[in-house]
Amino acid sequence: MDIGFIGLGEMGAVMVVNILKAGHTVRVWNRSPERAQTLAAAGAQIVATPAEAFAGDAVFSMLADDAALRDVIDSQLLEDAPRGLIHVNMSTISVALAELLAHAHAQRGLNYVAAPVLGRPDVAAAGKLTIVAAGPAEAIDLVQPVFDAIGQKTWRIGSLPQQANVMKLAVNFMLASAVETLGEASTLLTGHGVAMQDFLDVITNSVFPGPVYQGYGKMIAEQRYEPALFKARLGLKDVRLALAAADTISTALPIASVVRDSLLDAVAHGEGEMDFAVLGQVSARRAGR
Amino acid sequence: MDIGFIGLGEMGAVMVVNILKAGHTVRVWNRSPERAQTLAAAGAQIVATPAEAFAGDAVFSMLADDAALRDVIDSQLLEDAPRGLIHVNMSTISVALAELLAHAHAQRGLNYVAAPVLGRPDVAAAGKLTIVAAGPAEAIDLVQPVFDAIGQKTWRIGSLPQQANVMKLAVNFMLASAVETLGEASTLLTGHGVAMQDFLDVITNSVFPGPVYQGYGKMIAEQRYEPALFKARLGLKDVRLALAAADTISTALPIASVVRDSLLDAVAHGEGEMDFAVLGQVSARRAGR
Amino acid sequence: MDIGFIGLGEMGAVMVVNILKAGHTVRVWNRSPERAQTLAAAGAQIVATPAEAFAGDAVFSMLADDAALRDVIDSQLLEDAPRGLIHVNMSTISVALAELLAHAHAQRGLNYVAAPVLGRPDVAAAGKLTIVAAGPAEAIDLVQPVFDAIGQKTWRIGSLPQQANVMKLAVNFMLASAVETLGEASTLLTGHGVAMQDFLDVITNSVFPGPVYQGYGKMIAEQRYEPALFKARLGLKDVRLALAAADTISTALPIASVVRDSLLDAVAHGEGEMDFAVLGQVSARRAGR
Amino acid sequence: MDIGFIGLGEMGAVMVVNILKAGHTVRVWNRSPERAQTLAAAGAQIVATPAEAFAGDAVFSMLADDAALRDVIDSQLLEDAPRGLIHVNMSTISVALAELLAHAHAQRGLNYVAAPVLGRPDVAAAGKLTIVAAGPAEAIDLVQPVFDAIGQKTWRIGSLPQQANVMKLAVNFMLASAVETLGEASTLLTGHGVAMQDFLDVITNSVFPGPVYQGYGKMIAEQRYEPALFKARLGLKDVRLALAAADTISTALPIASVVRDSLLDAVAHGEGEMDFAVLGQVSARRAGR
Repeated sequence: MDIGFIGLGEMGAVMVVNILKAGHTVRVWNRSPERAQTLAAAGAQIVATPAEAFAGDAVFSMLADDAALRDVIDSQLLEDAPRGLIHVNMSTISVALAELLAHAHAQRGLNYVAAPVLGRPDVAAAGKLTIVAAGPAEAIDLVQPVFDAIGQKTWRIGSLPQQANVMKLAVNFMLASAVETLGEASTLLTGHGVAMQDFLDVITNSVFPGPVYQGYGKMIAEQRYEPALFKARLGLKDVRLALAAADTISTALPIASVVRDSLLDAVAHGEGEMDFAVLGQVSARRAGR
Repeated sequence: MDIGFIGLGEMGAVMVVNILKAGHTVRVWNRSPERAQTLAAAGAQIVATPAEAFAGDAVFSMLADDAALRDVIDSQLLEDAPRGLIHVNMSTISVALAELLAHAHAQRGLNYVAAPVLGRPDVAAAGKLTIVAAGPAEAIDLVQPVFDAIGQKTWRIGSLPQQANVMKLAVNFMLASAVETLGEASTLLTGHGVAMQDFLDVITNSVFPGPVYQGYGKMIAEQRYEPALFKARLGLKDVRLALAAADTISTALPIASVVRDSLLDAVAHGEGEMDFAVLGQVSARRAGR
Repeated sequence: MDIGFIGLGEMGAVMVVNILKAGHTVRVWNRSPERAQTLAAAGAQIVATPAEAFAGDAVFSMLADDAALRDVIDSQLLEDAPRGLIHVNMSTISVALAELLAHAHAQRGLNYVAAPVLGRPDVAAAGKLTIVAAGPAEAIDLVQPVFDAIGQKTWRIGSLPQQANVMKLAVNFMLASAVETLGEASTLLTGHGVAMQDFLDVITNSVFPGPVYQGYGKMIAEQRYEPALFKARLGLKDVRLALAAADTISTALPIASVVRDSLLDAVAHGEGEMDFAVLGQVSARRAGR
Repeated sequence: MDIGFIGLGEMGAVMVVNILKAGHTVRVWNRSPERAQTLAAAGAQIVATPAEAFAGDAVFSMLADDAALRDVIDSQLLEDAPRGLIHVNMSTISVALAELLAHAHAQRGLNYVAAPVLGRPDVAAAGKLTIVAAGPAEAIDLVQPVFDAIGQKTWRIGSLPQQANVMKLAVNFMLASAVETLGEASTLLTGHGVAMQDFLDVITNSVFPGPVYQGYGKMIAEQRYEPALFKARLGLKDVRLALAAADTISTALPIASVVRDSLLDAVAHGEGEMDFAVLGQVSARRAGR
């Protein structure tokens, strides 16, 4: 396929490499052009404007947050895009913005697919992302070859793009809750002289297998929060988005409120760039330890 | 070994069967004698008093809660027990009572081991329980053959018996938090038109594998809370014990407070005997659904 | 003085009447012109555009929320306003928007004063509002005669306009917390057979005198939430703004999160237009009553 | 009247002085006898055992908590007390213990009245306590002269003694919530550069008059938490009792859970003996200040 790609951060860059490897043509654009240069060697065509990326069979975007997306995707860009173009937005953004974008694209005869991904940069580099896609089925069919180049599995979960964003936020809400709970459990256990690592051995070999409890649990057990796999600051951003998505349907997420408050505590103590397993440290600090 | 066994509830009864199968001699006592009768066929010797069970190489107890244990284990019973007897208490009880019992046994020259188990009756019947043991190492060594008859793995986590109780409570706190979070996520997702089952497919195939998310998640997705695997009423009991164990070390567990409030809501609505996945229903109810 | 006044809702309309009574000239503008008509009889001059209100000695605005204010106050309006004009914004808005407006006015050589008020329409009609003002001191000095016409007391609390908004939000946060607590106390008391009115008699005659406990307490005691003095929907709006103002300084307000969740529960149950004392009903509902 | 009085702590001692001044005969007993000595000069008769205090027309008790009361009031004491004796328990205790005591007294033909008081030692010294009484009406009638000697007002709120305890706990829950909210508001305000004292001026002159907001607010504004008017440790005790009283009727008090967690934070940081206005410091600490 002939695609554009906007946003060459940690995630975007490795995804482009995998797409190129699969034989597709990729025109890349990034706000800081130096990031694009490094992809030229891998075969990417560097373009000077987002509009040049908004062409061909489809355009993919992978940006940091609502603000970054609003900066790039303006009404002029959509106005000038070729009718029928498919825009696949893989960024983790608010449900409100996703709805707004879905509407704006439809108005201009463009296809809009939301396809946030699960997995960190190392998973992305291995082409093993989990992709959660929502939007028009035919549009998703057409870009499936690109999804196959970057992910191991694409889940299609609805025809309204924002539904994929809700699911992504729900997943990150689950993660954040699991980490906060691990942190609180750690404070309870160590306060009674039980080793956190013993606890992790027990639960990861029984009720809670899987990478979340092993990975974040280990960081808490070792009180080592750097380098960050998932930064506290970004975890906070996603928990806020989950709360906002729930608010619009008059739904409370009391657990998310607790996690949000603990993440604010982390950020207030200068721990925003640490891994969000630092929630263990926040809990310990409240207990005077 | 020649052991006594006190408490023939759902869990205790199947554990005794497995101990008998492994060739041990078991004297059983239960408050309601009819429950003991059914075990006679399997080879158990029925005794008329707890004191008769408090004899031989060791005595095991598996009772419902602090109150049940306090009713049976009084100072006279300990006074009359043979010096050096090992008492293995597998009940899920408060840390405070565990400390008190450890002290009372030591004063009378008895060995006290706390060995709460992870796993429900079906797991117990299969002899696949996870056992978390704490107390004097030599005592645990001596009763290990019995542990091997009922469990697939024994974790030794400390020399103070109450540490095993703290760990058991921490595990159930993790479970309760995971279920509450699943419930809240479900309300968020379905409110935006995303199917809970789709969400479960995504997370159990990626970040959250394992029986907890599959089992309780399915109950929430299907809004089917009976028959109960783990009753809301009992989940509430354990969350209260976790909060109490944290309180004694001046530690807050904000997540546990949220879960406690939701479980109180369930009980107030007559859902105490349902599975504690009913937390999904509590969350939906708050959202007016 | 010769002033403009934008926003003739329940609060704005009675304020304008008092300003006219004090002898000032008032040019009024409202989105729905019929609301302006009724003030013509009281002596107000109706103008057709916000720009005509943005003239004379000062212009006052009293709008419902951020969105209403953003709709009216655009950059063109500020561009066209006479240099040195004082804009007194009495609306309860977000701290973020207040900062933005302060900046935008300063850039164009306009004075911006934030002066949110405490008191409901009946208090406003009596000219007894409490005014919390922040901004350039000389500007506040100049408009003080107008404040005197509508309020019994003006508190000057800082030179940065948004500080007045923070204080207004903090007051409403205190109110919301007091009402939520009254609601929870009511559920506790009535569940034990104690009459809520007895409780109110005790506290309002001892530790908690004042209109808040008497007024909202009575509504809870009588389970009568209409007519609303302060709508749940608007209470929710203000609690959200308090949380947002705290979030920008990495500060948690756990009490506000609890109140927010209860108000969402109210709105989800169709109680958004009732008085926010309906928090008593939300608490009772959670307790199955 | 001829009465006994048990418990000569800070509160009890000044109450006895006022009762003596009103002309009643008072036999006093205290665990530490030296405290009783100082009252002899004021005319009290010192007795050597609680049983000697459990005689005459009535006996009053003012003890620190459930444990202190359980230590003194045992079944033998009640067994030996003269039939028809009135026991007025003014201690702040759990609802569960109040119920148990009401039952135990009734079984032995004794009258049991619960009469917790509102007010600190200075208020008690002035004979201006607010008394909340519940129990048999005729018994309360008989001891009213003693209530009149120590309080300015007696509220009768029910025939079940524990109802007075519920009300006392509800009052202290209201207090604790108000102080926590003041603390959170302070963190919000000062973080935006608004002086807490300005805020207190505004609210105590408008929506929140009364000693609570003035007194605790001032301590928070001045960050001066000693000497304590009401210790954090004791505030925590009462919030726990309120949560327990709510738990027995399957009622959540989410605000109380938040306050409890903040008070645990205070105690964990060695602030348990400070005034519970130290909640302001806890909130500031979480915000990294």
